[in-house]
Order: sequence, then structure tokens, then C-alpha cells
Amino acid sequence: MKLISYRRAGKPCFGAVVNDGVVELSGRLEGVADLAALLADDAALARARELAASAGASHPLAGVQLEPVIPKPGKVVCVGINYVEHAHEAGRKIGAHPVIFQRYHETLIAAGAPLLRPKVSEQFDFEAELAVVIGKGGAHIDPADAMDHVAGYTCFNDASVRDWQFHTHQYGMGKNFQATGALGPWLVTADEIADYRELRVTGLLNGEQMQHGSLSELAFDIPTLIAYISKALPWNPGDILATGTPSGIGFKRTPPLFLKAGDTFEVTITQIGTLSNPVVDEA
Amino acid sequence: MKLISYRRAGKPCFGAVVNDGVVELSGRLEGVADLAALLADDAALARARELAASAGASHPLAGVQLEPVIPKPGKVVCVGINYVEHAHEAGRKIGAHPVIFQRYHETLIAAGAPLLRPKVSEQFDFEAELAVVIGKGGAHIDPADAMDHVAGYTCFNDASVRDWQFHTHQYGMGKNFQATGALGPWLVTADEIADYRELRVTGLLNGEQMQHGSLSELAFDIPTLIAYISKALPWNPGDILATGTPSGIGFKRTPPLFLKAGDTFEVTITQIGTLSNPVVDEA
Repeated sequence: MKLISYRRAGKPCFGAVVNDGVVELSGRLEGVADLAALLADDAALARARELAASAGASHPLAGVQLEPVIPKPGKVVCVGINYVEHAHEAGRKIGAHPVIFQRYHETLIAAGAPLLRPKVSEQFDFEAELAVVIGKGGAHIDPADAMDHVAGYTCFNDASVRDWQFHTHQYGMGKNFQATGALGPWLVTADEIADYRELRVTGLLNGEQMQHGSLSELAFDIPTLIAYISKALPWNPGDILATGTPSGIGFKRTPPLFLKAGDTFEVTITQIGTLSNPVVDEA
Repeated sequence: MKLISYRRAGKPCFGAVVNDGVVELSGRLEGVADLAALLADDAALARARELAASAGASHPLAGVQLEPVIPKPGKVVCVGINYVEHAHEAGRKIGAHPVIFQRYHETLIAAGAPLLRPKVSEQFDFEAELAVVIGKGGAHIDPADAMDHVAGYTCFNDASVRDWQFHTHQYGMGKNFQATGALGPWLVTADEIADYRELRVTGLLNGEQMQHGSLSELAFDIPTLIAYISKALPWNPGDILATGTPSGIGFKRTPPLFLKAGDTFEVTITQIGTLSNPVVDEA
């Protein structure tokens, strides 16, 4: 099942994508306020599947205003330097622990929404990633149980402002510019992905392939990441784990290549779909 | 005026502290949903001041359950290495840009609530800080105008899990453990603080002074920080800026000293008040 968050007539909604239509689920699942809540509720998910299969489309997909798959996740946890080849290009080694940084949910944008190239930088770069959407929450999760907490998968562009990322030894400010975290277009529920390690992520700039990686290449795999972070902070429904980007980022190309107004960047993941965002200059 | 967020009978409320009482403001200020919204609304703030002066206490302060001053700030922006002496003890130099990192709001706790010493670490440390609460939002703020965006000040304990903070070159995971960011007890509105540089922050462990600094010692002052961050991400009402901790943290003492169950840590700031939290072991 493909699930989205969206707005219609200004109202926040969620639903299932079936072909080119949306089966609205919000309002039809008692006690389920939003998509994050749905993901943690097996009985509601079963009813949602029935509705998606039997109810007709409520609206054409093209007629709704997508939001980030989870519009305001409690936390967006990002992982750096998690593909071996990307570690090489970044001049980093894979260490004993994953490199974790934080994104504010207010930096997220939906599929189709413009990535904002900042006024204060010429170094606006792309990072194609697989994002995990958490279903059931939990703390101190055993790696062997971690996949039970995955509700689904979506595409993420962790667009980064490189000069600001390296203003100091802490990445965070360059990873938290306004309208730089694209998340969507939908999540594909975990039951449809037999083995996430078979997924392949591609980043395309104006249709030309810039990045490509297989999820089997992760230095810290998804169970390890979920378990590690859960020792510090409990996972909650709708939380996002961005699993890192493969090699090919603009900053490490010769010559370096950065996003500019008029560009379109796409993140394509096999079995998931394509997240496409235009780039516009900050006004 | 001293402002708090709190719960009564499970309901989220906000109000003004007058002596030992609370003048409830929630429900009495049309269109003002929470304390963050109040801080951005000059007319509502004026009405709140009238109520605080004329209405009697709605409840004794001791009878309400405090929440973090802003229970769910849009963002909590933290600054590292911002007192020259603390930079010395940390073996760091003050660079050209402030060291910024991010905290999830779900790590915040109220005054009086327990700081949770994690299961997975013996290195749970304290950091006494002044936190700025943003009133009016804005982007690309000129440093000369930045203080107009400050609604008030409160106390913050940026309690940190040192081994996890240094698992990799990125601090964030060690700064985002569950129930480690104490914020409160109240904010003092900016009109009552003639010059924030005269404020002095003290950190006390079981009544013994561990940390002391003057806000005049900040390497990057409050206007500079507000302006810098606003180039990346607009400020919104209720956002929190934690200004960094002075020297004396446990990790850099000889021998090192860490928080343990049964301890009490207090952050005292002149003209503001005292934030006190007990330490308990994670269950």
C-alpha cells in the first residue's frame, strides 16, 4: 500500500494511492488522527487496506496538494557517511558508530515543492537517500526485532548547504536550511518490500544520473541504526530515519557541481517511486 | 512578567506567575492558543500584563504541573563552545562561526522533572545555560534588530551524554537522549532585563557550585547568534536558542564527575530564577 499525507481545501488529510487516484482514509478510521497514528495501529492498517482495495478513488492524485509523507515527524534522524564509496569521496573512514545528525521537521517539503537555494550560499547540494518511516515505537530495540518497527519506506533528498555544513566541525546548520529536506511522494508499506537491501537509490539532476547505490552497501544497516538510536531516544510512530547518501554528490565532483534555479532533482528508488523537486532561488 | 506553561487536570495551560500564585491566561486571551503564540502578539501581551496585575491567582504555583516553558518548540537551537574559558577546557578555539547543534523538542523536560541518567552510559553530564525564547519570528534578521525578536529568557540544562557525544565527530546523538534537556521554570519577559550581558549563570550540583559565567563572556553574542541562524532558517514564536555553557562541566574536571541517581542539579541565573531537577536512573 502507498500512503500519503496531503491537503484538500486547506484541510490536512491522509490516504492511499491507488493507480492515479487517492482513497481518502482520514475521517474513515475511527480514532486515527493522522498518518503517523495509522502506522502504529495494525487493526486500522488492515481496515485501510480493505478501503484501498474496495472504495473508489476520492480524488485524482494530481488534484491533491501533497505534504511531506509525515508532515511533522517527532524527529528526523539523519545518518552521514553510510555508504563506503561516499565515505571515500568525503575523505572519511567508517568508524565504530554511525554518524548521526538531526533535522528540524520544519525544513521538510513535499514532493513537487521547490527546494529553496539559499541567498547566503553558492553551494547548495543534493543527497538522494532512502528514508525509513517508523511504525511502532520503542526504546532499547534489539537489532533482531528492529524491522518490526519499520512501517514503510520513502524517498528523501537531504539537500545540504556545503559551506555552512563546514563552517564548524558540526554539520547541523548546513543540514537545516529552510525548505531543503524533500520527503515523499508516498511511503510504500514494509509488507511490499521483501528485502530492503535489494532497493537501489538513484539521484538524477535534470535527468542525468549523479548518484547510484544499493541499500546492501550500507555500512550501518537499518536494524543496526534503529537499535543504536533507540538506546538514546525512544522511536515514535511517524519518526523518520534517513539512511545516508551514496557517492556522487555535487560537492565532491570535479569540478564541483551545485544546484541552481531551474534545476530539477529526482530521487528514484526501486519498488518505491520517484521524488522530484524543482530548485528555486530564495526570494 | 514571568510566564509558564503547565497542565492542570491533564489540560495544557499557560499563565503568569505572581508571587506564589499563577494567574491563568489560557482561555482569557482570544485567539491565543498557547504561550508561543502569546509571545508574538504585542496586544495580547499587554492584556496579559493587565490580567497579571489585576486578576487574583487562579491556582497556587505549587499546585500546577509545570511543562517545559515552551512544551514543543518548533526548534531548539543549541550553541557549543561559546564561553572562552569553556573552549579552553574543551581544547577548542573560538572560530569564525558559532558551533550550532540541534535538539529534538521531545528531549525536553520541565523544572522539577527528573533528568534521566541513561542505561547505556556512565558519563551523564550537566551544562548550565541561558536560553532565549523567541517572540516575533523572522528571517535574515539584522544583528541590530535581533533583540526585538527576543520574548524572554529562561534557564536550560543541556545535559549531555559525553561518550555518545564523541562516538563520532558529530555531537548530536549525545545531546539528544530522552529527558535530558531541562527548560524552565518560567521565562522572564525581555522588558524586565535591561541588559542580558549583566546576567550571570551558575550551575550547582547538590548545592555546590560547579559552573559560573557571565553572559558578557559569550564569544558569539545573542544578536550575532539570532542573525546567523536566521540566514538559514526563519525563527518562529516559541523557538529556543540555548546560548552555550560556561566552564566547569563534569567531564573536564580532575577527576571527571558525572551525574548519578539522587543528585540534584540547579541552573541559577540572576534576574531569572532557578531551574532544579533531580537525577534518576533510567528504569
